[in-house]
Amino acid sequence: MKDPYMEGIKNNDHRWIAKAITLLESTRKEDRKKSIDLLSRLLKEKKPKTTMRIGISGIPGVGKSTFLESLGSYILNKDAKMKIAILSIDPTSPLEGGSILADRIRMETLSKSANVFIRPSPNTGIHGGVSRRTRESILLLESAGYDIIFIETVGVGQSEFHIASLVDLFLLLQMPSTGDDWQAMKKGILELADLVIVNKTDGALEKEAKALRKTLELSLPKESQKGNKLKVLCTSAKLKTGFDTVWEEISAYFSKEREKTLHKTRKNQDLFWFYEELFALFKNEVQENTSIQDALMPYREDVLNHGALFSEKSSEALTIILKTRSR
Amino acid sequence: MKDPYMEGIKNNDHRWIAKAITLLESTRKEDRKKSIDLLSRLLKEKKPKTTMRIGISGIPGVGKSTFLESLGSYILNKDAKMKIAILSIDPTSPLEGGSILADRIRMETLSKSANVFIRPSPNTGIHGGVSRRTRESILLLESAGYDIIFIETVGVGQSEFHIASLVDLFLLLQMPSTGDDWQAMKKGILELADLVIVNKTDGALEKEAKALRKTLELSLPKESQKGNKLKVLCTSAKLKTGFDTVWEEISAYFSKEREKTLHKTRKNQDLFWFYEELFALFKNEVQENTSIQDALMPYREDVLNHGALFSEKSSEALTIILKTRSR
Repeated sequence: MKDPYMEGIKNNDHRWIAKAITLLESTRKEDRKKSIDLLSRLLKEKKPKTTMRIGISGIPGVGKSTFLESLGSYILNKDAKMKIAILSIDPTSPLEGGSILADRIRMETLSKSANVFIRPSPNTGIHGGVSRRTRESILLLESAGYDIIFIETVGVGQSEFHIASLVDLFLLLQMPSTGDDWQAMKKGILELADLVIVNKTDGALEKEAKALRKTLELSLPKESQKGNKLKVLCTSAKLKTGFDTVWEEISAYFSKEREKTLHKTRKNQDLFWFYEELFALFKNEVQENTSIQDALMPYREDVLNHGALFSEKSSEALTIILKTRSR
Repeated sequence: MKDPYMEGIKNNDHRWIAKAITLLESTRKEDRKKSIDLLSRLLKEKKPKTTMRIGISGIPGVGKSTFLESLGSYILNKDAKMKIAILSIDPTSPLEGGSILADRIRMETLSKSANVFIRPSPNTGIHGGVSRRTRESILLLESAGYDIIFIETVGVGQSEFHIASLVDLFLLLQMPSTGDDWQAMKKGILELADLVIVNKTDGALEKEAKALRKTLELSLPKESQKGNKLKVLCTSAKLKTGFDTVWEEISAYFSKEREKTLHKTRKNQDLFWFYEELFALFKNEVQENTSIQDALMPYREDVLNHGALFSEKSSEALTIILKTRSR
């Protein structure tokens, strides 16, 4: 009997790809088992080609969706056979679903193309291990033949750090005049970037945008953390300008000469996520294993009754857990 | 022999309080031991009074520091004996230190007052367990006699979630016209809020600010997650207007009638942080315990050589760890 997931994914049926990603994101135990089965089979059947995994981030309002619409259209114009996937991660809406409609409107051309798969934010929330599942979604999309996987994220902070651990190239969008906390904000995040782009280089802010580019060029480190020359480029997603240079830069990043470096980056990321998965599984175990919960009961009571300081309580509890499980 | 930390903290010596917090934030093992000793002694010696733990958040540029300057000044004008602490958490600068100077400039009045202790972001970074240590810093400041502890955070996302777990009252700052991703951004975070404030209700944007207040009142749930009526207020940190109403609202929140609810919230938070500490200790154990590392070696090799999918590898590794430790 044919597996509808396998068939659907191989035929680039967006509906089945979406269903498969939903399966990956599910926290139910049966679904988790099915997910791993599906992924194992997909990965066994077809060694995925080397893809481009690209992270895109920037504060709300910087124009990520329109930037992707323009960049994606540019790429498809150059090579109509390219298959592009866009995954959104929005850590700021833990309690509600993604905004599918908004994405459709902002990425009008792309959302109509059969070569482009767009996945809005999952609604699994902060605790759902979004990033861990995103990693598996990337593998799935690669098996489905996608060449470029964009991981888009809203916001500043922890999410960037996780996304940087998922992609080969981390692209940070900036725009002119983002308010007075701007200096404080950019520090840590900018250091994750492999390519910085000043978007909204148009209209009344064009001059400011170009000045910002200069400032960034002067204040940024010469090299990215991965050891590449860190470039700052200007685009206008609205006017669709600057995308030739951006695509040139991205292509150079994924050139033959860089294959070895990319390979090494991915290995390090694999290891990072191996540990992340391990830590997440430990959490699950503590929350779901009844014998562990029984063993923790006196500690919980203690915390509830005497509250306040419990570094030591946690430490004792860990020792007990490690003992309990191995009985 | 007198302990300079204990003496300094009891005498409200800002320098020693700052030193003690640095000790709490240290990841060195000896420092951790000293920290727990210090905190235990502080908590034993003096049962801290019921304080106000208030979280303040909002995107960069919303004017958090100036808001705190105005609110803090208002409170001190009302009651000159009040002791106020401000802790900043900036998850976006993992690689560099806090911006002490910027805080000093934006909170000019407060930073000159002996009754106000201001602590800029720690430079321990994303992995430093900032929030866990912030919780201990709160306890320390309460022992030092501080009445109100403000926890200020930049950014949108995970950090808000953690800060909401540290405070009694979570105050979210908004401002008019934050760009087109605004709708997407506010969802999850707004649901953490106990009080929403539209800042920058002044000048050219006054009308827009008031309209935003209306929109928020209509679109927000009637009650906060803690079950309080969710209010939206307007302020101008620049013009120092609206702070009487804000302070009235905060005072009502901490009134005698609400003591039981507050108590319950704190108990739940204690439990949450007991587990967070436990999970963090497990991570440390995996990263530092050599016998665990030896046991993980074959799994690491496997991940590096065969990469890709390793949900199962992590699961096997966890079983091995739990066995290894208990020998």
